[in-house]
Amino acid sequence: VPAGSGEFALIERHFRRLGAQRRDVSLGVGDDAALLAPPAGMQLVAALDTLVEGVHFPRSAAAASIGHRALAVNLSDLAAMGAQPAWAMLALTMPSADDAWLAEFARGFEALACAHDVALVGGDTTRGPLTVSVQVMGFVPVGAALLRSGGKPGELLCVTGTPGDAAGGLALEDARARAGDPASEYLQQRFRYPAPRCQAGVRLRGIASACIDISDGLAGDAGKLAAASGCGVRIAVEELPLSPALLATFGEDRARQLALEGGDDYELLFSIAPGRLGDAQRALSPSGIECHRIGELCESAGVHLVHGGVVTQFSAQGYDHFATG
Amino acid sequence: VPAGSGEFALIERHFRRLGAQRRDVSLGVGDDAALLAPPAGMQLVAALDTLVEGVHFPRSAAAASIGHRALAVNLSDLAAMGAQPAWAMLALTMPSADDAWLAEFARGFEALACAHDVALVGGDTTRGPLTVSVQVMGFVPVGAALLRSGGKPGELLCVTGTPGDAAGGLALEDARARAGDPASEYLQQRFRYPAPRCQAGVRLRGIASACIDISDGLAGDAGKLAAASGCGVRIAVEELPLSPALLATFGEDRARQLALEGGDDYELLFSIAPGRLGDAQRALSPSGIECHRIGELCESAGVHLVHGGVVTQFSAQGYDHFATG
Repeated sequence: VPAGSGEFALIERHFRRLGAQRRDVSLGVGDDAALLAPPAGMQLVAALDTLVEGVHFPRSAAAASIGHRALAVNLSDLAAMGAQPAWAMLALTMPSADDAWLAEFARGFEALACAHDVALVGGDTTRGPLTVSVQVMGFVPVGAALLRSGGKPGELLCVTGTPGDAAGGLALEDARARAGDPASEYLQQRFRYPAPRCQAGVRLRGIASACIDISDGLAGDAGKLAAASGCGVRIAVEELPLSPALLATFGEDRARQLALEGGDDYELLFSIAPGRLGDAQRALSPSGIECHRIGELCESAGVHLVHGGVVTQFSAQGYDHFATG
Repeated sequence: VPAGSGEFALIERHFRRLGAQRRDVSLGVGDDAALLAPPAGMQLVAALDTLVEGVHFPRSAAAASIGHRALAVNLSDLAAMGAQPAWAMLALTMPSADDAWLAEFARGFEALACAHDVALVGGDTTRGPLTVSVQVMGFVPVGAALLRSGGKPGELLCVTGTPGDAAGGLALEDARARAGDPASEYLQQRFRYPAPRCQAGVRLRGIASACIDISDGLAGDAGKLAAASGCGVRIAVEELPLSPALLATFGEDRARQLALEGGDDYELLFSIAPGRLGDAQRALSPSGIECHRIGELCESAGVHLVHGGVVTQFSAQGYDHFATG
């Protein structure tokens, strides 16, 4: 975030000290680059994701939600690697600098950053169509990262939380549903303020054999995990853990479809050896996050949906940001 | 860069293995995040800058130039810290995926990345208005980084290369000048393919007391260095090193103005103790980069331009990306 005058000074005021104050930040916002002190014996884990107005969030989205989600989608990538987050950088492109909008954006970003002990250490603000890129860095002990590629046929496929909620919430936003009933409110909050599963990712080190976050839809992301692991995956559709709110609002069939194909959940999807479901549940328990077995990895390539005893192939490629918008 | 089908597969093909192959990249493009091995005893130096079409480059810009510049502006930030670059991440937002455009963009990015031993380790591609954010990471020995804040009154102000060339080149682009004469060609190349001064930055460790890169204009950036150092700066306008091409194309007065106020040079501006100009020149000599003394830091705050024995105050705030476009 460059020093400057006028609108830039306004921006700088919002972003100079955002998020956690960390002792491993030798120099944060304000020079040509940030100076950081990675801990010894750890690998650095880095992710960079972009949200574009009208593609990844509705034009009506609240600034606080945009600030939250831009960080959340990236923290979710670190969570999927089992990494502990530490630092973030923000590239914010926007058509004009509005003080109230910036304050709300910063508030949404800040709350999530502080919750995960993340410091904003630098970035850039530019004029242009509303586009938010966040880069995050975290740590994992050498060799302990959860990769997509570690799964084996015969292992169980598990998921944290209740997938489909965010897609349900987005469908309500798109339908301009009047908020009011608690179920709709819950689903919309799940879209607007997703909780990245960083604690869960760290606790799954040594337990999960492979892991991915569900950003593009459970079935498609399961296919990516399986493909990276050189195998296939069977998903038991009746076993999908669906929230009461999703079931009440959309009914069972549509709820299952949202859980399988909807994006933006930012839950973790992971494989474990057959005997370790209890270990995984006990490991996650202190973080208050549940996990459920929803299928298994198999020899036969592809995504096989098992529903009412019938097996169908899932062929969609997940939520493809580039084909959307 | 997500795995995927269709247009995404096309994008992935261009970006999966781009830049240098480095042994400290444990896992690059293709998982939820990159896994990197920072060297012991070094600080991590990180920068993130965005280029927006119509703001930071003309709509007519060649894709190879956009790929080059998006990386160059970030490498220049590392250079200004005295850091050795290592890794880059790319967030590319574009209206449609054109194979030829992507190939050219990747070629421009790749050539510069390889020249500086930088590996592309991850990123994201999204649909939207053409916006390119690049994040770079590099290293500096603990305590050896060049900061903006290390200058003192009485020290010399020096600059690498010949500032103003890129602004001259941009003015020719804006005027849709017909390329043809060697001077115009040279200036346009200086805008389109700026050379970040990474080697110079590394060699100035222990010699420069403060350093900044000239991205927003020499006079404005000199003001930022001076302000960060808690002092002022005097610039001897007659001492500005101007290229023969800039002088021939624009004449002395306009050339000096371009050198003082034009942006996008990505040269290094630094302060040194009075007796160390020879040390700086000798340190830079093996890299083929010249540096010249153009003024000094002083007690009196602000930017003081000395020209024909007359002192004027420079009041513009440099090239303000947010006020442009």
